[in-house]
Amino acid sequence: MPIERLAIIGGTGPQGRGLALRFATAGYAVVVGSRERAKAQGVVDAMQAAHPGLDVRGDDNAAAVADADAVVLALAPEGLAATIDALRERLAGRLVIDVVVPLALRDGLAEHAPPAGAGSAGELAQAMLPQSRVVGAFKTIPASHLLALERPLEGDVFVCGDDAAARADVAALVARVRNLRAVDAGPMRNARAIEGITALLVNLNRAHRAHTSIRVLGLD
Amino acid sequence: MPIERLAIIGGTGPQGRGLALRFATAGYAVVVGSRERAKAQGVVDAMQAAHPGLDVRGDDNAAAVADADAVVLALAPEGLAATIDALRERLAGRLVIDVVVPLALRDGLAEHAPPAGAGSAGELAQAMLPQSRVVGAFKTIPASHLLALERPLEGDVFVCGDDAAARADVAALVARVRNLRAVDAGPMRNARAIEGITALLVNLNRAHRAHTSIRVLGLD
Repeated sequence: MPIERLAIIGGTGPQGRGLALRFATAGYAVVVGSRERAKAQGVVDAMQAAHPGLDVRGDDNAAAVADADAVVLALAPEGLAATIDALRERLAGRLVIDVVVPLALRDGLAEHAPPAGAGSAGELAQAMLPQSRVVGAFKTIPASHLLALERPLEGDVFVCGDDAAARADVAALVARVRNLRAVDAGPMRNARAIEGITALLVNLNRAHRAHTSIRVLGLD
Repeated sequence: MPIERLAIIGGTGPQGRGLALRFATAGYAVVVGSRERAKAQGVVDAMQAAHPGLDVRGDDNAAAVADADAVVLALAPEGLAATIDALRERLAGRLVIDVVVPLALRDGLAEHAPPAGAGSAGELAQAMLPQSRVVGAFKTIPASHLLALERPLEGDVFVCGDDAAARADVAALVARVRNLRAVDAGPMRNARAIEGITALLVNLNRAHRAHTSIRVLGLD
Protein backbone atom coordinates (compact mmCIF):
# COMPACT_ATOMS: atom_id res chain seq x y z
CA MET A 1 0.00 0.00 0.00
CA PRO A 2 1.59 3.27 -1.02
CA ILE A 3 2.35 5.63 1.80
CA GLU A 4 0.81 9.10 1.59
CA ARG A 5 0.49 10.30 5.16
CA LEU A 6 3.37 10.01 7.59
CA ALA A 7 3.47 10.56 11.33
CA ILE A 8 6.83 11.16 12.95
CA ILE A 9 6.83 10.27 16.61
CA GLY A 10 9.59 12.10 18.40
CA GLY A 11 9.52 14.42 15.47
CA THR A 12 11.01 17.38 17.30
CA GLY A 13 14.53 15.97 17.52
CA PRO A 14 17.08 16.56 14.74
CA GLN A 15 16.50 13.22 12.97
CA GLY A 16 12.72 13.59 13.20
CA ARG A 17 12.77 17.19 11.99
CA GLY A 18 15.12 16.29 9.16
CA LEU A 19 12.91 13.42 8.02
CA ALA A 20 9.77 15.56 8.30
CA LEU A 21 11.41 18.19 6.12
CA ARG A 22 12.58 15.74 3.48
CA PHE A 23 9.29 13.81 3.38
CA ALA A 24 7.21 16.96 3.15
CA THR A 25 9.50 18.28 0.42
CA ALA A 26 8.94 15.01 -1.44
CA GLY A 27 5.20 15.67 -1.35
CA TYR A 28 4.03 13.64 1.62
CA ALA A 29 1.56 14.88 4.22
CA VAL A 30 3.51 14.86 7.47
CA VAL A 31 2.42 15.11 11.09
CA VAL A 32 5.16 15.87 13.56
CA GLY A 33 4.35 14.22 16.87
CA SER A 34 5.65 15.08 20.30
CA ARG A 35 4.65 14.29 23.85
CA GLU A 36 3.67 17.97 24.02
CA ARG A 37 1.47 19.22 21.25
CA ALA A 38 2.77 22.77 21.64
CA LYS A 39 6.33 21.63 21.15
CA ALA A 40 5.40 19.84 17.93
CA GLN A 41 3.55 22.93 16.77
CA GLY A 42 6.58 25.11 17.47
CA VAL A 43 8.78 22.88 15.33
CA VAL A 44 6.24 22.91 12.53
CA ASP A 45 5.87 26.69 12.68
CA ALA A 46 9.62 27.11 12.30
CA MET A 47 9.71 24.63 9.45
CA GLN A 48 6.91 26.36 7.57
CA ALA A 49 8.45 29.77 8.14
CA ALA A 50 11.68 28.55 6.54
CA HIS A 51 9.98 26.50 3.80
CA PRO A 52 6.50 27.84 3.05
CA GLY A 53 3.95 25.55 1.50
CA LEU A 54 4.95 22.26 3.07
CA ASP A 55 2.12 19.99 4.17
CA VAL A 56 3.26 19.62 7.78
CA ARG A 57 1.33 19.94 10.99
CA GLY A 58 2.08 19.24 14.65
CA ASP A 59 0.18 17.21 17.21
CA ASP A 60 0.71 15.08 20.28
CA ASN A 61 2.06 11.60 19.56
CA ALA A 62 -1.21 9.72 20.03
CA ALA A 63 -3.20 12.04 17.78
CA ALA A 64 -0.41 12.22 15.22
CA VAL A 65 -0.63 8.48 14.65
CA ALA A 66 -4.37 8.46 13.97
CA ASP A 67 -4.52 8.87 10.20
CA ALA A 68 -1.00 7.90 9.24
CA ASP A 69 -0.22 5.28 6.62
CA ALA A 70 3.16 4.87 8.24
CA VAL A 71 4.49 5.90 11.63
CA VAL A 72 8.14 6.83 11.97
CA LEU A 73 9.73 6.24 15.36
CA ALA A 74 12.38 8.95 15.62
CA LEU A 75 12.80 8.72 19.35
CA ALA A 76 15.81 9.04 21.56
CA PRO A 77 16.98 5.46 22.18
CA GLU A 78 16.32 5.73 25.90
CA GLY A 79 12.70 6.70 25.25
CA LEU A 80 11.98 4.02 22.67
CA ALA A 81 10.56 1.27 24.87
CA ALA A 82 8.36 3.56 26.96
CA THR A 83 6.90 5.31 23.94
CA ILE A 84 6.25 2.04 22.16
CA ASP A 85 4.50 0.81 25.31
CA ALA A 86 2.30 3.89 25.37
CA LEU A 87 1.39 3.67 21.68
CA ARG A 88 1.29 -0.10 21.19
CA GLU A 89 -2.43 -0.44 20.56
CA ARG A 90 -2.53 2.53 18.23
CA LEU A 91 0.33 1.05 16.23
CA ALA A 92 -1.28 -2.38 15.83
CA GLY A 93 -1.77 -3.20 12.17
CA ARG A 94 0.39 -0.26 11.10
CA LEU A 95 3.55 0.09 9.16
CA VAL A 96 6.13 1.39 11.64
CA ILE A 97 9.47 2.79 10.49
CA ASP A 98 12.18 2.67 13.12
CA VAL A 99 15.10 5.06 12.61
CA VAL A 100 16.59 4.75 16.09
CA VAL A 101 20.29 4.06 16.64
CA PRO A 102 21.30 3.41 20.24
CA LEU A 103 24.88 4.56 20.75
CA ALA A 104 27.06 4.89 23.80
CA LEU A 105 30.23 6.90 24.14
CA ARG A 106 33.08 4.96 25.75
CA ASP A 107 36.61 6.33 26.03
CA GLY A 108 35.82 8.88 23.37
CA LEU A 109 34.46 6.39 20.86
CA ALA A 110 30.86 5.85 19.86
CA GLU A 111 29.79 2.25 19.93
CA HIS A 112 26.55 0.45 19.22
CA ALA A 113 24.74 -0.05 22.52
CA PRO A 114 21.72 -2.23 21.76
CA PRO A 115 18.90 -2.28 24.29
CA ALA A 116 19.02 -5.01 26.91
CA GLY A 117 17.83 -8.32 25.50
CA ALA A 118 17.80 -7.21 21.86
CA GLY A 119 20.49 -7.10 19.21
CA SER A 120 19.34 -3.73 17.95
CA ALA A 121 16.71 -1.04 18.37
CA GLY A 122 14.96 -2.43 15.32
CA GLU A 123 14.69 -5.90 16.79
CA LEU A 124 13.39 -4.45 20.05
CA ALA A 125 10.75 -2.43 18.24
CA GLN A 126 9.55 -5.44 16.25
CA ALA A 127 9.53 -7.65 19.35
CA MET A 128 7.51 -5.05 21.27
CA LEU A 129 5.11 -4.51 18.36
CA PRO A 130 4.16 -8.01 17.24
CA GLN A 131 1.00 -6.69 15.57
CA SER A 132 2.82 -4.02 13.58
CA ARG A 133 5.01 -4.40 10.52
CA VAL A 134 8.26 -2.77 11.65
CA VAL A 135 10.89 -1.68 9.15
CA GLY A 136 14.25 -0.20 10.02
CA ALA A 137 15.42 2.60 7.73
CA PHE A 138 17.39 5.87 7.54
CA LYS A 139 19.70 4.67 10.30
CA THR A 140 22.88 5.68 8.47
CA ILE A 141 21.67 9.03 7.16
CA PRO A 142 22.83 11.80 9.48
CA ALA A 143 20.30 14.33 10.77
CA SER A 144 22.65 17.13 9.71
CA HIS A 145 22.29 16.00 6.08
CA LEU A 146 18.53 15.71 6.29
CA LEU A 147 18.21 19.20 7.75
CA ALA A 148 20.43 20.88 5.14
CA LEU A 149 17.78 21.02 2.45
CA GLU A 150 19.96 23.06 0.12
CA ARG A 151 22.53 20.28 0.05
CA PRO A 152 21.92 17.11 -2.02
CA LEU A 153 21.63 14.01 0.10
CA GLU A 154 23.97 11.14 -0.62
CA GLY A 155 24.31 7.58 0.49
CA ASP A 156 22.18 4.49 0.72
CA VAL A 157 19.30 3.79 3.07
CA PHE A 158 19.37 0.24 4.37
CA VAL A 159 15.81 -1.01 4.66
CA CYS A 160 15.40 -4.04 6.92
CA GLY A 161 12.47 -5.84 8.45
CA ASP A 162 10.81 -9.21 8.57
CA ASP A 163 7.94 -8.33 6.20
CA ALA A 164 9.09 -8.08 2.60
CA ALA A 165 6.04 -6.12 1.43
CA ALA A 166 6.57 -3.58 4.20
CA ARG A 167 10.20 -3.25 3.17
CA ALA A 168 9.06 -2.58 -0.38
CA ASP A 169 6.69 0.15 0.80
CA VAL A 170 9.49 1.81 2.72
CA ALA A 171 11.87 1.42 -0.20
CA ALA A 172 9.35 3.30 -2.35
CA LEU A 173 9.24 6.04 0.29
CA VAL A 174 13.03 6.28 0.29
CA ALA A 175 13.10 6.47 -3.48
CA ARG A 176 10.83 9.52 -3.41
CA VAL A 177 13.38 11.41 -1.32
CA ARG A 178 15.70 12.96 -3.83
CA ASN A 179 19.16 11.42 -4.23
CA LEU A 180 18.62 8.60 -1.75
CA ARG A 181 18.70 4.96 -2.77
CA ALA A 182 17.04 2.19 -0.80
CA VAL A 183 18.97 -1.04 -0.32
CA ASP A 184 16.77 -3.98 0.64
CA ALA A 185 18.70 -5.33 3.60
CA GLY A 186 16.48 -8.27 4.42
CA PRO A 187 15.34 -9.37 7.87
CA MET A 188 15.38 -7.12 10.90
CA ARG A 189 18.29 -9.03 12.40
CA ASN A 190 20.52 -7.14 9.99
CA ALA A 191 19.67 -3.98 11.93
CA ARG A 192 22.46 -4.77 14.39
CA ALA A 193 25.10 -4.38 11.67
CA ILE A 194 23.37 -1.33 10.23
CA GLU A 195 23.22 0.40 13.62
CA GLY A 196 26.88 -0.52 14.08
CA ILE A 197 27.69 1.31 10.85
CA THR A 198 26.27 4.47 12.36
CA ALA A 199 28.62 4.16 15.33
CA LEU A 200 31.51 3.83 12.91
CA LEU A 201 30.37 6.83 10.86
CA VAL A 202 30.05 8.95 13.99
CA ASN A 203 33.65 8.09 14.84
CA LEU A 204 34.79 8.83 11.30
CA ASN A 205 32.97 12.17 11.43
CA ARG A 206 34.77 13.14 14.59
CA ALA A 207 38.22 12.02 13.46
CA HIS A 208 37.98 13.39 9.93
CA ARG A 209 35.81 16.45 10.70
CA ALA A 210 33.42 15.14 8.08
CA HIS A 211 29.76 14.32 7.56
CA THR A 212 29.83 10.81 6.22
CA SER A 213 27.30 8.40 4.86
CA ILE A 214 27.76 5.08 3.16
CA ARG A 215 27.08 3.46 -0.20
CA VAL A 216 26.94 -0.18 -1.19
CA LEU A 217 28.85 -0.97 -4.36
CA GLY A 218 28.18 -3.94 -6.62
CA LEU A 219 24.38 -3.97 -6.58
CA ASP A 220 22.59 -3.98 -9.96
CA MET B 1 58.50 2.34 7.94
CA PRO B 2 57.39 1.48 4.41
CA ILE B 3 56.38 -2.11 3.86
CA GLU B 4 58.26 -4.02 1.18
CA ARG B 5 58.04 -7.66 2.20
CA LEU B 6 54.76 -9.21 3.28
CA ALA B 7 54.06 -12.59 4.84
CA ILE B 8 50.53 -13.92 4.65
CA ILE B 9 49.79 -16.43 7.37
CA GLY B 10 46.96 -18.72 6.37
CA GLY B 11 47.78 -17.60 2.86
CA THR B 12 46.26 -20.63 1.18
CA GLY B 13 42.61 -19.69 1.83
CA PRO B 14 40.68 -17.51 -0.61
CA GLN B 15 41.25 -14.23 1.26
CA GLY B 16 44.95 -14.99 1.74
CA ARG B 17 45.44 -16.01 -1.87
CA GLY B 18 43.55 -12.97 -3.08
CA LEU B 19 45.65 -10.62 -0.97
CA ALA B 20 48.89 -12.35 -2.01
CA LEU B 21 47.91 -11.90 -5.64
CA ARG B 22 47.02 -8.24 -5.28
CA PHE B 23 50.06 -7.37 -3.16
CA ALA B 24 52.44 -9.16 -5.51
CA THR B 25 50.80 -7.47 -8.50
CA ALA B 26 51.36 -4.16 -6.73
CA GLY B 27 55.09 -4.93 -6.56
CA TYR B 28 55.52 -6.32 -3.07
CA ALA B 29 57.60 -9.38 -2.22
CA VAL B 30 55.11 -11.84 -0.77
CA VAL B 31 55.56 -15.05 1.18
CA VAL B 32 52.50 -17.26 1.42
CA GLY B 33 52.56 -19.10 4.72
CA SER B 34 50.77 -22.28 5.67
CA ARG B 35 51.05 -24.85 8.40
CA GLU B 36 52.34 -27.15 5.66
CA ARG B 37 55.09 -25.78 3.50
CA ALA B 38 54.07 -28.02 0.59
CA LYS B 39 50.55 -26.63 0.61
CA ALA B 40 51.87 -23.07 0.50
CA GLN B 41 54.19 -24.04 -2.34
CA GLY B 42 51.29 -25.55 -4.28
CA VAL B 43 49.30 -22.33 -4.00
CA VAL B 44 52.28 -20.29 -5.11
CA ASP B 45 52.98 -22.60 -8.05
CA ALA B 46 49.41 -22.18 -9.27
CA MET B 47 49.60 -18.42 -8.81
CA GLN B 48 52.83 -18.12 -10.76
CA ALA B 49 51.56 -20.38 -13.52
CA ALA B 50 48.55 -18.07 -13.95
CA HIS B 51 50.50 -14.83 -13.46
CA PRO B 52 54.18 -15.30 -14.36
CA GLY B 53 56.74 -12.97 -12.89
CA LEU B 54 55.17 -12.30 -9.51
CA ASP B 55 57.53 -12.17 -6.54
CA VAL B 56 55.75 -14.82 -4.47
CA ARG B 57 57.09 -17.83 -2.62
CA GLY B 58 55.64 -20.36 -0.20
CA ASP B 59 56.85 -21.47 3.21
CA ASP B 60 55.61 -22.73 6.53
CA ASN B 61 54.09 -20.05 8.74
CA ALA B 62 57.04 -19.68 11.11
CA ALA B 63 59.60 -19.34 8.32
CA ALA B 64 57.33 -17.07 6.30
CA VAL B 65 57.31 -14.50 9.09
CA ALA B 66 61.08 -14.30 9.38
CA ASP B 67 61.94 -11.45 7.04
CA ALA B 68 58.56 -9.80 6.67
CA ASP B 69 58.02 -6.09 7.24
CA ALA B 70 54.37 -6.86 7.89
CA VAL B 71 52.57 -10.09 8.65
CA VAL B 72 49.02 -10.56 7.44
CA LEU B 73 46.80 -12.86 9.49
CA ALA B 74 44.41 -14.36 6.93
CA LEU B 75 43.33 -17.25 9.10
CA ALA B 76 40.01 -18.95 9.48
CA PRO B 77 38.43 -17.33 12.56
CA GLU B 78 38.43 -20.60 14.50
CA GLY B 79 42.19 -20.95 13.97
CA LEU B 80 43.10 -17.39 14.88
CA ALA B 81 43.85 -17.77 18.59
CA ALA B 82 45.85 -21.00 18.25
CA THR B 83 47.99 -19.64 15.43
CA ILE B 84 48.63 -16.38 17.25
CA ASP B 85 49.67 -18.43 20.28
CA ALA B 86 52.10 -20.43 18.17
CA LEU B 87 53.63 -17.36 16.50
CA ARG B 88 53.45 -14.85 19.34
CA GLU B 89 57.18 -14.47 19.93
CA ARG B 90 57.95 -14.26 16.23
CA LEU B 91 55.38 -11.52 15.87
CA ALA B 92 56.71 -9.39 18.73
CA GLY B 93 57.76 -5.97 17.49
CA ARG B 94 56.10 -6.57 14.12
CA LEU B 95 53.36 -4.86 12.21
CA VAL B 96 50.53 -7.41 12.06
CA ILE B 97 47.58 -6.94 9.70
CA ASP B 98 44.45 -8.77 10.76
CA VAL B 99 41.91 -9.44 8.01
CA VAL B 100 39.80 -11.98 9.89
CA VAL B 101 36.01 -11.67 10.10
CA PRO B 102 34.33 -14.16 12.42
CA LEU B 103 30.84 -14.89 11.12
CA ALA B 104 28.19 -17.38 12.13
CA LEU B 105 25.21 -18.50 10.11
CA ARG B 106 21.96 -18.45 12.05
CA ASP B 107 18.56 -19.12 10.47
CA GLY B 108 20.05 -18.46 7.07
CA LEU B 109 21.59 -15.11 7.99
CA ALA B 110 25.24 -14.32 8.52
CA GLU B 111 25.97 -12.45 11.71
CA HIS B 112 29.09 -11.16 13.36
CA ALA B 113 30.24 -13.74 15.88
CA PRO B 114 33.13 -12.18 17.78
CA PRO B 115 35.44 -14.48 19.71
CA ALA B 116 34.60 -15.08 23.36
CA GLY B 117 35.69 -12.18 25.51
CA ALA B 118 36.47 -9.82 22.63
CA GLY B 119 34.30 -7.45 20.60
CA SER B 120 35.99 -8.44 17.36
CA ALA B 121 38.73 -10.56 15.85
CA GLY B 122 40.87 -7.45 15.63
CA GLU B 123 40.55 -6.69 19.32
CA LEU B 124 41.37 -10.32 20.16
CA ALA B 125 44.47 -10.22 17.97
CA GLN B 126 45.72 -6.98 19.56
CA ALA B 127 45.00 -8.29 23.06
CA MET B 128 46.88 -11.52 22.35
CA LEU B 129 49.80 -9.67 20.73
CA PRO B 130 50.59 -6.85 23.15
CA GLN B 131 54.11 -6.54 21.73
CA SER B 132 52.92 -6.23 18.14
CA ARG B 133 51.28 -3.32 16.37
CA VAL B 134 48.06 -4.85 15.09
CA VAL B 135 46.02 -3.17 12.38
CA GLY B 136 42.70 -4.43 11.04
CA ALA B 137 42.21 -4.02 7.29
CA PHE B 138 40.63 -5.52 4.16
CA LYS B 139 37.76 -6.89 6.25
CA THR B 140 35.07 -5.65 3.87
CA ILE B 141 36.80 -6.58 0.61
CA PRO B 142 35.52 -9.96 -0.59
CA ALA B 143 38.00 -12.68 -1.51
CA SER B 144 36.14 -13.17 -4.80
CA HIS B 145 37.04 -9.61 -5.78
CA LEU B 146 40.66 -9.97 -4.78
CA LEU B 147 41.06 -13.17 -6.78
CA ALA B 148 39.49 -11.77 -9.96
CA LEU B 149 42.57 -9.90 -11.09
CA GLU B 150 41.02 -8.91 -14.41
CA ARG B 151 38.26 -7.05 -12.62
CA PRO B 152 38.92 -3.64 -11.05
CA LEU B 153 38.55 -3.64 -7.29
CA GLU B 154 36.12 -1.21 -5.76
CA GLY B 155 35.25 -0.08 -2.29
CA ASP B 156 37.01 1.29 0.72
CA VAL B 157 39.35 -0.51 3.09
CA PHE B 158 38.71 0.46 6.69
CA VAL B 159 42.04 0.59 8.52
CA CYS B 160 41.76 0.41 12.30
CA GLY B 161 44.20 -0.10 15.12
CA ASP B 162 45.48 1.54 18.23
CA ASP B 163 48.80 2.72 16.72
CA ALA B 164 48.33 5.64 14.35
CA ALA B 165 51.71 5.19 12.66
CA ALA B 166 50.94 1.54 11.99
CA ARG B 167 47.60 2.54 10.53
CA ALA B 168 49.39 4.97 8.24
CA ASP B 169 51.78 2.23 7.06
CA VAL B 170 48.85 -0.03 6.25
CA ALA B 171 46.98 2.81 4.56
CA ALA B 172 50.00 3.28 2.30
CA LEU B 173 49.92 -0.44 1.51
CA VAL B 174 46.23 -0.22 0.64
CA ALA B 175 46.83 2.76 -1.58
CA ARG B 176 49.35 0.76 -3.64
CA VAL B 177 46.66 -1.78 -4.49
CA ARG B 178 44.96 -0.40 -7.57
CA ASN B 179 41.51 1.13 -7.11
CA LEU B 180 41.32 0.66 -3.36
CA ARG B 181 41.08 3.55 -0.95
CA ALA B 182 42.09 3.36 2.70
CA VAL B 183 39.83 4.97 5.26
CA ASP B 184 41.53 5.64 8.57
CA ALA B 185 38.99 4.16 10.94
CA GLY B 186 40.75 4.95 14.21
CA PRO B 187 41.15 2.64 17.19
CA MET B 188 40.80 -1.12 16.99
CA ARG B 189 37.51 -0.99 18.85
CA ASN B 190 35.91 0.13 15.59
CA ALA B 191 36.69 -3.34 14.22
CA ARG B 192 33.46 -4.62 15.71
CA ALA B 193 31.38 -2.38 13.45
CA ILE B 194 33.62 -3.08 10.47
CA GLU B 195 33.33 -6.86 10.93
CA GLY B 196 29.58 -6.38 11.28
CA ILE B 197 29.52 -4.68 7.88
CA THR B 198 30.95 -7.84 6.37
CA ALA B 199 28.09 -9.88 7.84
CA LEU B 200 25.65 -7.43 6.25
CA LEU B 201 27.41 -7.55 2.88
CA VAL B 202 27.37 -11.36 2.92
CA ASN B 203 23.61 -11.23 3.46
CA LEU B 204 23.19 -8.64 0.71
CA ASN B 205 25.26 -10.80 -1.64
CA ARG B 206 23.03 -13.79 -1.04
CA ALA B 207 19.74 -11.90 -1.34
CA HIS B 208 20.75 -9.80 -4.33
CA ARG B 209 23.02 -12.37 -6.05
CA ALA B 210 25.69 -9.72 -5.99
CA HIS B 211 29.28 -9.16 -4.94
CA THR B 212 29.12 -6.07 -2.81
CA SER B 213 31.61 -3.82 -1.11
CA ILE B 214 31.16 -0.50 0.59
CA ARG B 215 32.26 3.10 0.21
CA VAL B 216 32.23 5.95 2.67
CA LEU B 217 30.86 9.19 1.24
CA GLY B 218 31.65 12.62 2.56
CA LEU B 219 35.37 12.27 3.32
CA ASP B 220 37.88 14.78 1.86
